Amino acid sequence: MQITLSSPLDMHLHLRDGDMLRLTAPLSADFAGAVIMPNLVPPVSTPEMMQAYAERIESAMGGADFTRYMTLFFTPLSEAQLDAAAAAPGFFGFKLYPAGITTNSEGGLRDFADAEPTLRAMEERGIPLLVHGESHGFVMDREAEFLATYRALATRFPKLKLCMEHITTAAAVQLLDEFPNICATVTLQHLLITLNDVAGGALKPHLFCKPIAKRPEDKEALLSAALGGHPRLFFGSDSAPHPQHKKECCGCAAGVFTAPVALPALAQLFAEHGALDKLQGFVSGNACRHYGLAPVEKIVTLRDTPMQVPAAYRSFGQTVVPMFAGEELGWSVAH
Amino acid sequence: MQITLSSPLDMHLHLRDGDMLRLTAPLSADFAGAVIMPNLVPPVSTPEMMQAYAERIESAMGGADFTRYMTLFFTPLSEAQLDAAAAAPGFFGFKLYPAGITTNSEGGLRDFADAEPTLRAMEERGIPLLVHGESHGFVMDREAEFLATYRALATRFPKLKLCMEHITTAAAVQLLDEFPNICATVTLQHLLITLNDVAGGALKPHLFCKPIAKRPEDKEALLSAALGGHPRLFFGSDSAPHPQHKKECCGCAAGVFTAPVALPALAQLFAEHGALDKLQGFVSGNACRHYGLAPVEKIVTLRDTPMQVPAAYRSFGQTVVPMFAGEELGWSVAH
Repeated sequence: MQITLSSPLDMHLHLRDGDMLRLTAPLSADFAGAVIMPNLVPPVSTPEMMQAYAERIESAMGGADFTRYMTLFFTPLSEAQLDAAAAAPGFFGFKLYPAGITTNSEGGLRDFADAEPTLRAMEERGIPLLVHGESHGFVMDREAEFLATYRALATRFPKLKLCMEHITTAAAVQLLDEFPNICATVTLQHLLITLNDVAGGALKPHLFCKPIAKRPEDKEALLSAALGGHPRLFFGSDSAPHPQHKKECCGCAAGVFTAPVALPALAQLFAEHGALDKLQGFVSGNACRHYGLAPVEKIVTLRDTPMQVPAAYRSFGQTVVPMFAGEELGWSVAH
Repeated sequence: MQITLSSPLDMHLHLRDGDMLRLTAPLSADFAGAVIMPNLVPPVSTPEMMQAYAERIESAMGGADFTRYMTLFFTPLSEAQLDAAAAAPGFFGFKLYPAGITTNSEGGLRDFADAEPTLRAMEERGIPLLVHGESHGFVMDREAEFLATYRALATRFPKLKLCMEHITTAAAVQLLDEFPNICATVTLQHLLITLNDVAGGALKPHLFCKPIAKRPEDKEALLSAALGGHPRLFFGSDSAPHPQHKKECCGCAAGVFTAPVALPALAQLFAEHGALDKLQGFVSGNACRHYGLAPVEKIVTLRDTPMQVPAAYRSFGQTVVPMFAGEELGWSVAH
């Protein structure tokens, strides 16, 4: 069996910087493009930083056709600053992190009231707002507690292009159904695992991410929405590489590295559920329609021939362990 | 401030065997005694194995006065086998593990129906049954799902001395109130931490244990029962040492090593809540009364002078990382 995908997109990707960028960027080259997250140190917060980062990504990609949908780290901005951002080449939208909620988010937003004028101006200009939606509460409740904020934003700014990034709960899927002006991304791992896989047997650092994987009924709701072809649910890997020693240590960093396995694993998952006809929409069509995107044309063929996943990816002095390390996937990309 | 405790007991302790036993045993010597768990490889399942293990513990204790309340790994037994166990020196009771539920429990019980005749005979003889009460379900629900089994056992065998080991949920505290023929142990860590501490920030292997730490309201219910002097709630550390490399690796083993910090940390916790008057009952009196125990006499003085917790305990080629490694506790044992 095989399937061809036209211009698959990863709507939520961390490529990092420096040697780690040089390692990870080519591992996303099967995608036609990706929304690039800005949580570097320091965060990508000006058009100039963004443009320089886009150039470093292009260089790390080694000539692969790849559309970089660049984001800026959200901070309250004037209308003039917003206009400058919107005019910058490659700009896609703003990524909003509540302060301290995940990797390199210390400079994030502390009070949504401070953001209102900026959000109003973004709404008027059609600039997308991508949100890491978690409270600082109990880890299993953080996303659910944040849904009230999404609800308030969607109500107060009805034309704002608001995206709930990497949703993990049945309640978020419900909210997606409730507000036609909200869209969402979902990762590979949240379609596949629950907290049981992270901490039900031995503790598995390479499956630990934020938001943490939730309950079985949450996974089922996410999977059902993805397989059912929900028009406002997009694949966003949230592939988040960390050096191996920062994952396998006493106090490991959050993030699952899925970029190099995402397309084969998605094909396998959708095939298992007889939903291969929904994969094109999930990995590209839905997002292109919602945001009006036109990425580079790239045809990717996926076949049900096995892919042996490496125990780690190593180059430029970096070592990163992917999801399914050392395992065999049933599908692979035909290169 | 200081407090003297008379013959403190650890009602649930893993000492392991070999070099690890030689490292850990002396670190429990501030206690007058402990209920010793039998999940070695192979499990301690005959009076002969139990007696030999008790002797190895005595030797590892290096002459410290320490009452070993020995347990046998529960399997269905004949009445003659039960009588032989009950007659063995140092025998305290049986520890029941559902098969595969935690470290070295592969040979545990698969079907409670198989256990009924043995449980009836234990009830008649007054032999305690200590249970690791978890289902094989979703990690946050495992204890709650097992409560129906406790309820069935307490109803079917009303005179059986049934102990819910290392309880972690508000629902288990409720069950304790409901059935006067059930008692329970609770660990130090479950009075102090929730899943947030294990997986809410970075992943913390040294706070990962089974049952996993639960929700804030669960911790509050456990703490409230302990501080309130619940007469059938006993301190059981479930101190469960693993070699450092088996904790800080890709897929870490379950267990928190608390033996060397348990008494100071409990004193600090009870003092903070103005409940020092309840500590004697929690760490000794309640269990002695419930089980009719008379451990060796040992007076332990705890003072509010700091204890610097080592980053690790090392000897006999073993390295074990304790809870609060590298931190300072407000209280210490006066030696």
